[in-house]
Amino acid sequence: MQQSSHITPDGSIAMVDISNKNLSHRSARARARVRLARAAKEALVAASLDKGDAFAAAQIAGIMAAKQTATLIPLAHPIPLSEVQVSFAWDDDVLQIEGLARTNAATGVEMEAMVAACVAALTIYDMMKSLDKGITIETVELLEKHGGKSGSWRRASEI
Amino acid sequence: MQQSSHITPDGSIAMVDISNKNLSHRSARARARVRLARAAKEALVAASLDKGDAFAAAQIAGIMAAKQTATLIPLAHPIPLSEVQVSFAWDDDVLQIEGLARTNAATGVEMEAMVAACVAALTIYDMMKSLDKGITIETVELLEKHGGKSGSWRRASEI
Amino acid sequence: MQQSSHITPDGSIAMVDISNKNLSHRSARARARVRLARAAKEALVAASLDKGDAFAAAQIAGIMAAKQTATLIPLAHPIPLSEVQVSFAWDDDVLQIEGLARTNAATGVEMEAMVAACVAALTIYDMMKSLDKGITIETVELLEKHGGKSGSWRRASEI
Amino acid sequence: MQQSSHITPDGSIAMVDISNKNLSHRSARARARVRLARAAKEALVAASLDKGDAFAAAQIAGIMAAKQTATLIPLAHPIPLSEVQVSFAWDDDVLQIEGLARTNAATGVEMEAMVAACVAALTIYDMMKSLDKGITIETVELLEKHGGKSGSWRRASEI
Amino acid sequence: MQQSSHITPDGSIAMVDISNKNLSHRSARARARVRLARAAKEALVAASLDKGDAFAAAQIAGIMAAKQTATLIPLAHPIPLSEVQVSFAWDDDVLQIEGLARTNAATGVEMEAMVAACVAALTIYDMMKSLDKGITIETVELLEKHGGKSGSWRRASEI
Amino acid sequence: MQQSSHITPDGSIAMVDISNKNLSHRSARARARVRLARAAKEALVAASLDKGDAFAAAQIAGIMAAKQTATLIPLAHPIPLSEVQVSFAWDDDVLQIEGLARTNAATGVEMEAMVAACVAALTIYDMMKSLDKGITIETVELLEKHGGKSGSWRRASEI
Repeated sequence: MQQSSHITPDGSIAMVDISNKNLSHRSARARARVRLARAAKEALVAASLDKGDAFAAAQIAGIMAAKQTATLIPLAHPIPLSEVQVSFAWDDDVLQIEGLARTNAATGVEMEAMVAACVAALTIYDMMKSLDKGITIETVELLEKHGGKSGSWRRASEI
Repeated sequence: MQQSSHITPDGSIAMVDISNKNLSHRSARARARVRLARAAKEALVAASLDKGDAFAAAQIAGIMAAKQTATLIPLAHPIPLSEVQVSFAWDDDVLQIEGLARTNAATGVEMEAMVAACVAALTIYDMMKSLDKGITIETVELLEKHGGKSGSWRRASEI
Repeated sequence: MQQSSHITPDGSIAMVDISNKNLSHRSARARARVRLARAAKEALVAASLDKGDAFAAAQIAGIMAAKQTATLIPLAHPIPLSEVQVSFAWDDDVLQIEGLARTNAATGVEMEAMVAACVAALTIYDMMKSLDKGITIETVELLEKHGGKSGSWRRASEI
Repeated sequence: MQQSSHITPDGSIAMVDISNKNLSHRSARARARVRLARAAKEALVAASLDKGDAFAAAQIAGIMAAKQTATLIPLAHPIPLSEVQVSFAWDDDVLQIEGLARTNAATGVEMEAMVAACVAALTIYDMMKSLDKGITIETVELLEKHGGKSGSWRRASEI
Repeated sequence: MQQSSHITPDGSIAMVDISNKNLSHRSARARARVRLARAAKEALVAASLDKGDAFAAAQIAGIMAAKQTATLIPLAHPIPLSEVQVSFAWDDDVLQIEGLARTNAATGVEMEAMVAACVAALTIYDMMKSLDKGITIETVELLEKHGGKSGSWRRASEI
Repeated sequence: MQQSSHITPDGSIAMVDISNKNLSHRSARARARVRLARAAKEALVAASLDKGDAFAAAQIAGIMAAKQTATLIPLAHPIPLSEVQVSFAWDDDVLQIEGLARTNAATGVEMEAMVAACVAALTIYDMMKSLDKGITIETVELLEKHGGKSGSWRRASEI
């Protein structure tokens, strides 16, 4: 059967050895969706019309968390990120948060993009939970990645 | 309209002042669901039968991340956690991850539980992504919380 | 001559032992001043009229750094902060940044307030340095502190 | 009007994309000045004659903080620092602290030098505050930087 | 057979639940021994006679690491340390490093003391390794602990 | 007499300047030995037969700590680790823990390997201390290193 790359033959957990891989430009985009009840959405949007602060808090938290990916994810490699972006869009009452990461390194930045989107979503939840504890973070997923030996991958629904 | 507790009258972002709140026992449980394709699930389960390492990695990452919540979430207060647990259950091809947090403090541990579940899920994704980049983290949400002035809250679907 | 509290009789560096001090409410306010050339001030203010993002970045960085004070300052004690605020005001072309911290603990929060103001100022510098590397951070200083055995202290110029 | 490099056209906060920039040797020097009352200066100097511990604490704190720059400053890139130095000099009752940073990277180390000087100054303040809470950190500023596309810059007063 | 407190009945790894334990004064002392060849010892001692910097580096690193114990050790609880001390003594060519930690908390500080001694020893190794990579850290062990339900414990050889 | 590389001519502590060193493949292996009383060893081994969780906790803690080496050790350079492994073997009642680190960088990974072995050992101690506080960590030492200007070094007893 297929074997996850992180499980070595003796069962130990180890970081994948990337010593012999080439540096190349790599990027990845991930998305988190936060479903809000109508009252919570209105409060969030109103705050954004005023000063944009709730979105800025989530944006900054996502960017800073991306830089902490190797600290959070046990087998993630430290990566010299060259860019991180967190952006927002509305799909009805669902807030879509995208995390984008780029680097020139020997390994990809899928986790950095996933962490950015996830922590931005958690921050939105933290900002809104006094209004509605039931807010859910849905469908945190990778949208695309490019670079490295495995090249480009896109989520089927996004092509 | 309702006002998020984190937006002060002048629009600034500030931590909620909990100086005058009483210490009390507080707990919270959150859940993340990770949907796996059949091949990925089989590889994950096989690894667990061998050594349980993939689950241990996610469990430890979730526990350690809960302790870092105030570092990740801009307006979260530092909290002296008295307990963190991360546990797993299967619902068909969906892996359910629960994070539980307890403290005796002046504020609740909803974010600690959410972060534990989220980072455990991100770690499972990291362990499995070489098999399937399309694995999605679904429905990260609070299940219940207890303690403090607002008392108990349970997600309707869980009662 | 006067002896700094951090230098023990044998010259070693050690954290002050606060085991026998009482928990009490403590607060502190500190201020950093950032002097900007006219062109830089205009760009900063324009950004604030648009979205307030530069100020939000500095505000969040200051709040998050206050929570990291014990990680940055060798002999600082870990403190369960109950509140951190970062606020801004203009004095001509000088941006005044105030950091406020509160806790119920056995030691004061002067360093937390100083770190908040300082890192917020460093963030403003980082946001503006592409326009003017010569921007200076002036006069990072404690304005007042309250609580604990030494009680209240106010900077003479502020009374 | 001039536009800060960190504000993208849609107002979002994002890290500057350095993916297409060349690696080159970069350095930067920054200075913080700490003004001490005569009694505080004497205590600090005496400690240095004994063991130099107060200066060592500030020196180490500054070096370690420089390595944490990307963790503290929201839009700072992770940088593989090749050298960090913190040094001291007296100008009457003003302690001058210089931070020096070097790297071979795609972006400069101005923030690393500023953070080193700033945190070293904050540490001196922490060591001395039991003697004088009114000690002020003055004029944290960049002295010079070299390397990269924008080449060399020196503070006018230092040329 | 005896069961480690960290392994719950279902085999999962979880933090011990200290929610129902009383706050009390707790302390612990641990020791690390670093064996140096004669030439290395002489260089270390000479540096200490000059400025004491190598010892200060190790002292500060040990104190700062003690504060990071919960970040390093998966199941360690965050603890509001009230004091940390790192001290040195010579036993022939063996450098003895003691870490002392105190707190008022619901759990003990054995790990904080062990981490302080260990990281101070690792720092001495780092400072000396250019002279002798073969320097060994020996016998990192707990010397005594006090407080909490299990009361006092002392290493037999130390009584 | 020999001079440690970290002490500059004026006595200051500074990071070694590696700006002019070449990137090359570097590796290092270190070992920590944990001596257990028979009852403690049996409990540890039984846990490993069940789920291997105690070893997984130590393994993950060691890997994650290696990535934090520059945060823990004052003068350590940030290094883009390409691999970290932690493995275990029994020598009677002594648990041998090996840390292995690799990178392509301008400096070696001896400290990363030492930190990995050390923190894994501290984690084993933490997991077992409720059974026996007297468990000792022995002989944390470098076994070998390769790469860079000084080339290969092996501990005499290991050749």
